[in-house]
Amino acid sequence: MPVLVMKFGGTSVATLDRIRRAAKRVGVEVAKGYDVIVIVSAMSGKTNELVGWVNETSPMYDAREYDAVVSSGENVTAGLMALTLQEMDVPARSWQGWQVPVKTTSAHSSARIEEIPSGNIMAKFKQGMRVAVVSGFQGVSPEGRITTLGRGGSDTTAVAFAAAFGAERCDIYTDVDGVYTTDPRVSAKARKLDKIAFEEMLELASLGAKVLQTRSVELAMRYKVKLRVLSSFEEQSDTAGTLVCDEEEIMESNVVAGVAFSRDEAKMTLVSVADRPGIAATIFTALSEAGVNVDMIVQNIAEEGRTDMTWSCPNDQVKRAEKAMETAKQEGVIRFGEMIADMDVAKVSVVGIGMRSHTGVAAKMFRVLSNEGINIKVITTSEIKISVLIDRKYMELAVQALHDAFELEKSS
Amino acid sequence: MPVLVMKFGGTSVATLDRIRRAAKRVGVEVAKGYDVIVIVSAMSGKTNELVGWVNETSPMYDAREYDAVVSSGENVTAGLMALTLQEMDVPARSWQGWQVPVKTTSAHSSARIEEIPSGNIMAKFKQGMRVAVVSGFQGVSPEGRITTLGRGGSDTTAVAFAAAFGAERCDIYTDVDGVYTTDPRVSAKARKLDKIAFEEMLELASLGAKVLQTRSVELAMRYKVKLRVLSSFEEQSDTAGTLVCDEEEIMESNVVAGVAFSRDEAKMTLVSVADRPGIAATIFTALSEAGVNVDMIVQNIAEEGRTDMTWSCPNDQVKRAEKAMETAKQEGVIRFGEMIADMDVAKVSVVGIGMRSHTGVAAKMFRVLSNEGINIKVITTSEIKISVLIDRKYMELAVQALHDAFELEKSS
Repeated sequence: MPVLVMKFGGTSVATLDRIRRAAKRVGVEVAKGYDVIVIVSAMSGKTNELVGWVNETSPMYDAREYDAVVSSGENVTAGLMALTLQEMDVPARSWQGWQVPVKTTSAHSSARIEEIPSGNIMAKFKQGMRVAVVSGFQGVSPEGRITTLGRGGSDTTAVAFAAAFGAERCDIYTDVDGVYTTDPRVSAKARKLDKIAFEEMLELASLGAKVLQTRSVELAMRYKVKLRVLSSFEEQSDTAGTLVCDEEEIMESNVVAGVAFSRDEAKMTLVSVADRPGIAATIFTALSEAGVNVDMIVQNIAEEGRTDMTWSCPNDQVKRAEKAMETAKQEGVIRFGEMIADMDVAKVSVVGIGMRSHTGVAAKMFRVLSNEGINIKVITTSEIKISVLIDRKYMELAVQALHDAFELEKSS
Repeated sequence: MPVLVMKFGGTSVATLDRIRRAAKRVGVEVAKGYDVIVIVSAMSGKTNELVGWVNETSPMYDAREYDAVVSSGENVTAGLMALTLQEMDVPARSWQGWQVPVKTTSAHSSARIEEIPSGNIMAKFKQGMRVAVVSGFQGVSPEGRITTLGRGGSDTTAVAFAAAFGAERCDIYTDVDGVYTTDPRVSAKARKLDKIAFEEMLELASLGAKVLQTRSVELAMRYKVKLRVLSSFEEQSDTAGTLVCDEEEIMESNVVAGVAFSRDEAKMTLVSVADRPGIAATIFTALSEAGVNVDMIVQNIAEEGRTDMTWSCPNDQVKRAEKAMETAKQEGVIRFGEMIADMDVAKVSVVGIGMRSHTGVAAKMFRVLSNEGINIKVITTSEIKISVLIDRKYMELAVQALHDAFELEKSS
């Protein structure tokens, strides 16, 4: 029988009632003839509680023990989901990560899945079991210790199972009903997309659209797993939600698929850096070692032998970046004049695979922002994305203007 | 290095503060030179929460899923305890049941430990690890599924580890400071015992003294594991608590070690049962199949060919017993006149290995009760115990009178 993977996030299994509702959805797919692998998260709030206990116990915790503690929430949901399905007369059982086994690297708290042998579960399917309920977010290391995949890791678990079992589709049930052209809280004209290409979803996910974990999209793209994002709180239908798929499956699409944004950005500039070969490498290695996630980078030649170096990073990493640069200055590794941090910036991006074949998107974006009197501070572009850094107070205005200008409220 | 097993119950690890306090006790033993195996329960209340969810989800639950859900509480405590020890610079790590592995039977929810290979943990001790924190109450079946040992199973886990590792002692930390001659809430003269024999502890445990799980005492007796029961809320010393040990280690002791009692008893009588060979077997097989735990049994010959059959069982099993007997009567398997259930009885017992060599204990007990005007309804005796069923309203009076008469407030 064809295999379907269904993943339920924390809010979708937050109470016994919600678990029951989720189980009913599973029952519908079983009735259609699918053997179903259900991936569950912890009941919402549970993982935070466990993480809180670990942090309070040991601020510099041993990640192996962190994983052992934090993974327990998913096991509770898996057992309860299996019991709920059994109550509905659907043959089901739970599997913890080590029982499958979900083999991962030893990088505790951010392990990567290396292999999911399908033998154990397939054998049970052959014996008449219809649903395997698997604890998401967790696996087992070569040393036999429990690992976790990092926050949001259950999405990755789901996609990895879909790939390993050749599933027809991987349905991600969450508290939103799909992927939107932009955040509906910022633009009332935001429209739900029926389909979106993997590459677009990847850019949107990395830009802070919290619908799917970035790694799960990467994995789905690599293994061509059809991903569907849909709400567990609305009526189910075959066209519900948003299908994340290969771009070939999207017949025609808007040039721009969506407008993304991120509020928590900061712009930092080192003024008058003594320019020499390798200076950029020196600066960004020091930042990286300090745990600063640098996003955009711009270099301006100010005068002969001096340069200004500008980058953006998350707001809450500015202190860390400043400390790293001051240290490097004191040690004589990097010489610069002033260091400036602008904490009041936001990033706005337009994303779309159509940009590959359409020119003029960047020019149009800059013109729209200029017409609104919004000054652009930094620009970066990729093949399917243009991002700009602007004053934060203009962020909503910029998103709305771009959404209008690219006519995202209309479907193609 | 010598191995010590320390077990902390739910109230002893109920909060992060209490886990810290427990970890300090472990640190003291490590400093003395012990390699320590710590067995932990779930934080108090957690197991009840999980059991509640399972019952609400599926009243006739699959015990395999019950075990998968309910075992998660211990894993949380084990990880947090390992982290706490690490914070104190004590090399420690957690082990879940399947990681040791604690091999059990497949009798889910009431599995028995079959084997605990010591290799994995001993190898870590040799590498310098000083504390293995093990999730109590759980194991893994031959099929690779998680099992639990039944309520209070962590005591059994602790004793089984002590036996498997040849531990010098097994310290059970709990919320009482030892074993008493009787419940201090019933007699103010109750005295903490420094030592008690396995056999006595076994009788007291099976009589409802909830200090230790009966199975853990049986296991300790079989493998001659020295058990110490002590409070995690009081100052630690080498003579704290009560040592449960082989009777040879108790130099001299009172004839009677303690007075136990149980409130929740019922006395049932089948009047005028048609007597024939095998009738007792028929009755008690039917009761056993209905899940009734029969305790005391008395048979009186009423008249030729007829007999009265009396037994005691827990109060809350009376309805079940009545149903089983009515069914048997309707099916013609058992014939009897009337069925009488007396719900207002209590059991009072005196226990002591000294009774083996001292006569007259029973006579003294009956005299003491008679002097207080207490009527005895049923009597049973074993080598080291005499139990009587009396009206519940006299229970406290009986316990106090017996405690006085056998001078239990004085140590031998």
